[in-house]
Amino acid sequence: MSAFKAVDYKDDVLILLDQRKLPVEKNYVEIRTLEEVVHAIKDMIVRGAPAIGATAAFGMLIGANALGKDLSFDTLQEVKVTLDASRPTAVNLMWATARIMDAVSKARPEDYRAVVNAEAWAIYNEDAASCKQMAVYGNTLVNEGDTILTHCNTGALATVAYGTALGVIREAHFTGKNIKVFADETRPRLQGARLTAWELMEEGIPSTLIPDSVAATLIRDGKIDKIFVGADRIAGNGDTANKIGTFMLSVLAKAYHVPFFIVAPTTTIDFDMADGSYIEIESRDATEVTHIDGIMVAPEGMAVYNPAFDVTPNENITGIVTEKGILYPPYVEAIMRIRDIK
Amino acid sequence: MSAFKAVDYKDDVLILLDQRKLPVEKNYVEIRTLEEVVHAIKDMIVRGAPAIGATAAFGMLIGANALGKDLSFDTLQEVKVTLDASRPTAVNLMWATARIMDAVSKARPEDYRAVVNAEAWAIYNEDAASCKQMAVYGNTLVNEGDTILTHCNTGALATVAYGTALGVIREAHFTGKNIKVFADETRPRLQGARLTAWELMEEGIPSTLIPDSVAATLIRDGKIDKIFVGADRIAGNGDTANKIGTFMLSVLAKAYHVPFFIVAPTTTIDFDMADGSYIEIESRDATEVTHIDGIMVAPEGMAVYNPAFDVTPNENITGIVTEKGILYPPYVEAIMRIRDIK
Repeated sequence: MSAFKAVDYKDDVLILLDQRKLPVEKNYVEIRTLEEVVHAIKDMIVRGAPAIGATAAFGMLIGANALGKDLSFDTLQEVKVTLDASRPTAVNLMWATARIMDAVSKARPEDYRAVVNAEAWAIYNEDAASCKQMAVYGNTLVNEGDTILTHCNTGALATVAYGTALGVIREAHFTGKNIKVFADETRPRLQGARLTAWELMEEGIPSTLIPDSVAATLIRDGKIDKIFVGADRIAGNGDTANKIGTFMLSVLAKAYHVPFFIVAPTTTIDFDMADGSYIEIESRDATEVTHIDGIMVAPEGMAVYNPAFDVTPNENITGIVTEKGILYPPYVEAIMRIRDIK
Repeated sequence: MSAFKAVDYKDDVLILLDQRKLPVEKNYVEIRTLEEVVHAIKDMIVRGAPAIGATAAFGMLIGANALGKDLSFDTLQEVKVTLDASRPTAVNLMWATARIMDAVSKARPEDYRAVVNAEAWAIYNEDAASCKQMAVYGNTLVNEGDTILTHCNTGALATVAYGTALGVIREAHFTGKNIKVFADETRPRLQGARLTAWELMEEGIPSTLIPDSVAATLIRDGKIDKIFVGADRIAGNGDTANKIGTFMLSVLAKAYHVPFFIVAPTTTIDFDMADGSYIEIESRDATEVTHIDGIMVAPEGMAVYNPAFDVTPNENITGIVTEKGILYPPYVEAIMRIRDIK
């Protein structure tokens, strides 16, 4: 599926691509103990919500294996608590460990290890299958020879495999559509430069890196056929929170009639949220802007506004690609319909 | 006029603010010889076309002083050739040294030193006066309490004093209008973070630094009252080439009805150029995007598109502030009129 795996599990060993070293080095870390799993999550060897979820799921399995004869609901619960504490803000981490404990709570004690194993792999495989499904749906929107613009990292580094928006790009490339890609560098954290560019090169997809402000002229000059980006949260009316810079692209896309697609699993949709105005925008640390890899690029004490996300209004979105199909306006109705599809 | 001077001349000594050390250190360099002037230009202690022009003009004066009794048209011409070679692509450098030689060619040999001195100061003072005039005109557009967005560095660091767009901001601040400023960091070279933020802090102007892609949401959310940016070149119809990212701002400004002003001296206008399509866009080195202060932030070998400028079409421009007054649409007529004003 991909030229690399961010998260893999073989012969009782968890294998993580060390994302701290990217894009300079491609190193895999072998993880055999619960302590090593905690360290890997804490130290951001692994990043991206689904990838962290899968890592924690395999962490439960490593913990269960180590317990041997001491494996019980209570000792496994201790493993969960240890893993959850490694990154308390990671919702997917808690979700994965809770899902495993829920399955365990319904099983007989002699089946605990097998249940943990099965559930960890289910979490892993479901994410991979969901990405693949989005990629296949999204690829129906791509024409032979298209040039695609993307923003931030939505690839196999953030998910367990394939990615969301970058999954569509992979699928289009692997099905021989001769696409080209422009990748926004995505300030301030430069995930486009550090991660997306790296993934595109690993896959051999013809691509070009640009500063975020270059996209506008490419869009105006007809150099971009389609835009595919990910989502952090989608409201019930289709308003979409995604990495800062997404809204800007959507305005340019609308002004110059370039199709603009969101690619995200239905788990991203908050069905109870009426519209994007309810999405709280996290403000991140000033040093992400004033320092790059520890080097100061702005004067000491300068005030900074550094929102992590922006909200793109539904009227700027051509379609939303999910694992259950592609949603089109009017989004309130489309999202209500998809809610009930299993 | 400003809290600092990028270029100054006192008691036969040229004093340059060392811009290589900004924003981390504020150091002035004292320059007494022609060799030191050449080094200062070559090594980019000084930057910005008008500042380089003034530096070269004072370089002619330092050269003339050193020649003493050997001062002649020919020996001064050698000084000019030496200075011109320090940065062959700097048009303002050549313009300044040629202007001085032209004045010298019309003078008596015994007046050469006095003519060089007068012409160097004229070059310096004319730029300062031009900036001040733009600032005064531009300030008529600013209301009490306005929040102003600017891009790149157009300040006293790039000119001999005050600046263009940042000169308007200075004037508004010093006339007590209680303005606030948002400064785009301006990737890839980060002149907004490194230089504009530094100038704003030096002057004590309340201001906030943002990644370039944050501007879009501020504009949409009504947080920006006016946008002031500079220009590298203006065509006869008002189309304006400026630092990459300017066009993007202009589209957002138009979509959300925020006044968008160019501030530039009439020397920036190419009266013979029909429109912006004739402006050649320089593509700059990939390493400006892939490396920051020598640190690699993108994978080895990644293709990069790094245009230095973009062209904003005249229909996105609310007005062009020059030292001769403010131009409004239709720009072809406005620019023809201003051409003949002395």
